[in-house]
Amino acid sequence: MQTTDVTVIGLGLMGHSLAKAFLTAGHSVTVWNRTRSKADDLVALGAASAATIQEATEASELVVVCVTDFAAIREQFGKAVTLVNLSSGTSEQARETAEWAPAGLDGAILAVPDGIGTDEAVIVYSGDRAAYERHEATLKAIGTPSFLGEDHSLAALHEMAILSLMWNMLNGFLHGTALLQAAGVSAASYVPLAEKGVDTIKSWLAAYADQVDAGDFPPLDSTLDVHVAAMDHLIHESRHLGVGAELPEFLKSLTTGVDPTRGYAALVSRLR
Amino acid sequence: MQTTDVTVIGLGLMGHSLAKAFLTAGHSVTVWNRTRSKADDLVALGAASAATIQEATEASELVVVCVTDFAAIREQFGKAVTLVNLSSGTSEQARETAEWAPAGLDGAILAVPDGIGTDEAVIVYSGDRAAYERHEATLKAIGTPSFLGEDHSLAALHEMAILSLMWNMLNGFLHGTALLQAAGVSAASYVPLAEKGVDTIKSWLAAYADQVDAGDFPPLDSTLDVHVAAMDHLIHESRHLGVGAELPEFLKSLTTGVDPTRGYAALVSRLR
Repeated sequence: MQTTDVTVIGLGLMGHSLAKAFLTAGHSVTVWNRTRSKADDLVALGAASAATIQEATEASELVVVCVTDFAAIREQFGKAVTLVNLSSGTSEQARETAEWAPAGLDGAILAVPDGIGTDEAVIVYSGDRAAYERHEATLKAIGTPSFLGEDHSLAALHEMAILSLMWNMLNGFLHGTALLQAAGVSAASYVPLAEKGVDTIKSWLAAYADQVDAGDFPPLDSTLDVHVAAMDHLIHESRHLGVGAELPEFLKSLTTGVDPTRGYAALVSRLR
Repeated sequence: MQTTDVTVIGLGLMGHSLAKAFLTAGHSVTVWNRTRSKADDLVALGAASAATIQEATEASELVVVCVTDFAAIREQFGKAVTLVNLSSGTSEQARETAEWAPAGLDGAILAVPDGIGTDEAVIVYSGDRAAYERHEATLKAIGTPSFLGEDHSLAALHEMAILSLMWNMLNGFLHGTALLQAAGVSAASYVPLAEKGVDTIKSWLAAYADQVDAGDFPPLDSTLDVHVAAMDHLIHESRHLGVGAELPEFLKSLTTGVDPTRGYAALVSRLR
């Protein structure tokens, strides 16, 4: 007996934002969370709060899951649902889930909870194409959906790739702010230049990707030895200012054994 | 005897682009390079080729230097010039140069040689404000100039910060392409999502900077322990796909000893 458009299982920061976005878009929503009180404000907005996962999964054909450990609660789901698993996980976990629910989708949210329901939120999906097409219009309520392909693992892999980009980018930014702070410059005053720098580096990604795909790494900006010389400057500068040099030392270590006459993208050759 | 608007010392890839941009903007230009033949095409465009550094520095009031090792040739310069040192170096080297030429400028080019002379190129300067104001109009020929302050070291420090951002961002991108390639996905097809991710992360930098300046790190997106759990996923995913896990292992190591209930920006507290 299905009574609502969509069910949301898991009401952490992200799951709560997902349920709210579906409600805001005018959908009828059933929710479930282990701590049931987390649904109170959603119920006030019109959501139905289910007592059990079983009851929640039976309430809608489309069941969106966003929990910390999906495997731990998987067995409590009914099978006659389109399961869209937005819980964070590895591609292996996505494949396991796919064996268990082949007609479902694995998704990855490339946004923070506050961005859900806005154009800023990109959500990538992989898995059953028919399920995606059937529910695409509804899924637009939580963010811009993008279908990556029928291999269930693709969404998790793209999420991992984006997370790696995120942590590295934030680390580079934070290290820069530490250098500048040590010289009496505020992090805030560095932001406009950092943003401009990010735009410039972003504009190189397509050319770097072409080199990765071709497996050939002619220097686009400068040769690797020029980068290494500048890394030495950064190590020296960090130590001179009393800023931890672990990060630039690691950057330099990644260049070991890579042909110094090639471009920076040649570092990818160490990875596989 | 000054006969040209600007002198460019050093005609590597970058110096050559600088000289060409000045010529294109209609300035009279004197150039010098150890290997004099590198000036041939610039001479064909109207540049004067000086036989010695001394002669080159005497030819213009504004002398722009872009060499690999500035200290090695510094003593060959006349003193009666406005020296703009665009050679890459540390803030210590900039201070040394400032002792030697206090009325000059230290600059950092945040662009690749091909970008010189376009709006894409941002060039930051620090040092003598009067010199900057006197030559700002001319310096616009090579890129958008920005004056950071009278402390000569500021340009070098900002360059170091941007380089750190660049290497880290590229490493994160390259690691992502390796993961996807291992799963049969081309790097090129990942670029649109990576670009979108970069835009999202860029939009967080101002808030991260405010936390760094305040020394307080409430979680903006998720708490550090959630990040660490996802880093474990990335380590696992990398190993599973046969991709080097050195990078995600390093990312995780940087979180050691940082309060797991704070936001990601708390990592900066390890650096100083």
